[in-house]
Amino acid sequence: MNTETIKRRARTVRRLLKSKKTGSLVVTKPANVTYMTGFLGGDSWAVIAARAVYLLTDSRYTEQAQGECRACRIIERDTALPEAASRLLQKLKVVKSAAVENSTTLADFEALQKKTGRTLKKTANIVEGARSSKDAGEIAAIRAAGRIASQALKQARRYIKTGITESEFAGRLDFQIRKLGAQTSFETIVAFGANGSRPHHQPSGRKLRRDDYILVDFGARYKGYCCDLTRCFVVGRPRNIEFYKKVYDAVQKAQTAAIKMVKAGVAIKRVDSVAREVIAKHDLPVYGHGTGHGLGIEIHENPFLNTENKGKLKAGQIITIEPGVYIPGKLGVRIEDDVLVTQTGFKILTRSCPHMFS
Amino acid sequence: MNTETIKRRARTVRRLLKSKKTGSLVVTKPANVTYMTGFLGGDSWAVIAARAVYLLTDSRYTEQAQGECRACRIIERDTALPEAASRLLQKLKVVKSAAVENSTTLADFEALQKKTGRTLKKTANIVEGARSSKDAGEIAAIRAAGRIASQALKQARRYIKTGITESEFAGRLDFQIRKLGAQTSFETIVAFGANGSRPHHQPSGRKLRRDDYILVDFGARYKGYCCDLTRCFVVGRPRNIEFYKKVYDAVQKAQTAAIKMVKAGVAIKRVDSVAREVIAKHDLPVYGHGTGHGLGIEIHENPFLNTENKGKLKAGQIITIEPGVYIPGKLGVRIEDDVLVTQTGFKILTRSCPHMFS
Repeated sequence: MNTETIKRRARTVRRLLKSKKTGSLVVTKPANVTYMTGFLGGDSWAVIAARAVYLLTDSRYTEQAQGECRACRIIERDTALPEAASRLLQKLKVVKSAAVENSTTLADFEALQKKTGRTLKKTANIVEGARSSKDAGEIAAIRAAGRIASQALKQARRYIKTGITESEFAGRLDFQIRKLGAQTSFETIVAFGANGSRPHHQPSGRKLRRDDYILVDFGARYKGYCCDLTRCFVVGRPRNIEFYKKVYDAVQKAQTAAIKMVKAGVAIKRVDSVAREVIAKHDLPVYGHGTGHGLGIEIHENPFLNTENKGKLKAGQIITIEPGVYIPGKLGVRIEDDVLVTQTGFKILTRSCPHMFS
Repeated sequence: MNTETIKRRARTVRRLLKSKKTGSLVVTKPANVTYMTGFLGGDSWAVIAARAVYLLTDSRYTEQAQGECRACRIIERDTALPEAASRLLQKLKVVKSAAVENSTTLADFEALQKKTGRTLKKTANIVEGARSSKDAGEIAAIRAAGRIASQALKQARRYIKTGITESEFAGRLDFQIRKLGAQTSFETIVAFGANGSRPHHQPSGRKLRRDDYILVDFGARYKGYCCDLTRCFVVGRPRNIEFYKKVYDAVQKAQTAAIKMVKAGVAIKRVDSVAREVIAKHDLPVYGHGTGHGLGIEIHENPFLNTENKGKLKAGQIITIEPGVYIPGKLGVRIEDDVLVTQTGFKILTRSCPHMFS
């Protein structure tokens, strides 16, 4: 991560902290640590202080941190994280005005309070607030991840043949993502036939039949950023193909309607409900999950597109739009793309991956 | 998960709860939810009450839960988890005597307190306590995971040739694990040459040379249970091969010495220090990480083998023993196996994977 980016992020977070009368912040959520420091390893916290950003890591990661974190001070700890953070806060004389992210566990928070001997403040969504609007580098990384995912699916489809298992096809796809220099952004979902009705199906030993449905929900993580895609297609001419086509068509229309709504300032709830209305109008069961979610360093982050969200879309957010239709024991269809929210509308970042029906 | 296993675990946890004067437990840690219900999906909590174990999940997972959780009651929630848990505790009339795991986030805990209108108790290590001793089924699953990992490495080694990247080799290995019906238990580490000095190196575009060192730290997850292995070997005849052999020999001796110490009742700290002493005696730098860790549903769980742990080994625990030597810019060697603690000594569960030097 370049020095200027990290410094800009630190300035944004310090401004948000100031508005909450907080001097420094103990960052414990891994994705937030990555965002504030550039560090891609684990088991580390960051402390955002007035003059510097600190990374508290251990000897397993020191070399990696030195390569990745050019704009922050690296502290190699030899104690547990709460103790290391407490020592740093005390050394900086900022215990009194420090706050801790409320995504911290009760155990870590209590250990930190015990070590500092103070009741510490808790904050919500400070770094997440900064993260929700993506900068040009982040948008480029997610777009590149989309291209990699698209290329990987194209390569993996060559292995589709009668008898291949869901698990093996998922493995082929993951390998292509790896080969293209990226990682998977979450556990690839491959569902054949009726297994598609489970939105979070885990790839099994189910073999592909000569005439079958395929649902693939997958993503690549590139330079630390995730994309998230779902594609459905058929091989041969499955039974109920006419009904499947009808379902697919409804899901595609629902997705298009929701994407067209995307624009800075639009109520999130509206984008969610537009997609559901299209499904309902086709007399199909309306899905129980949200219509989409933000994505970036995490595969699921703010904003969450559902019936309860009272917020509005903001320029720079990147969200998935992924309506589906699930009929247990029969079939499942979902179509998912990643969309950048702009002042004037939207940009689809996953156009490189064609929607496929057969 | 069979009904009897789940019932036995619930009895154990209820006994531990009773000793803390607690009636029921809100289980939020994913691995604990899996342990108490058999559920392998995400975004779900469990509630252990006097008469039943409940799984709070959502529509994405209902079908999966019905297949996996034969011994618990499945509640399909349409609200956030804290609200769903609060409703259940109120319905069961156990809010007053309920406790929450201290691995819960501050945000979730506060939401749960707000919804119940009560100050809730926190508990530590209740389910983890039950999990730490493995039953026959768990031991068999980890042993099977070890066999799969071993087989996968054997298959993947066929792709080792000059020019292959760390990332591609990691992908080949992951694919073999998938093909054998398992998943990776964590992000595979492949480090060529000097990259081995970073204990948590992420596979990069670094290409294998004609004469090179290879370090692979990887594992398979089978039936929800992890194994964790590190193997080091060379291709061709790298420079400094004599020094590398000296280092490898020291690490192997350190590992053997530590494994031989393993037995129920032995001080964890002693097992840790025995390995370090062997490394030091060879005038090599002593590693900064722990000598090992428990593993099971999680890749890292209790007990942690380090200089600070004041506990003793218990029969039924499964731990890794993984000393290493790291010389930045030069090389890294680590050897890791999974070991079952018994009343009379130990059983190595990863014997199926030969230690390889070349």
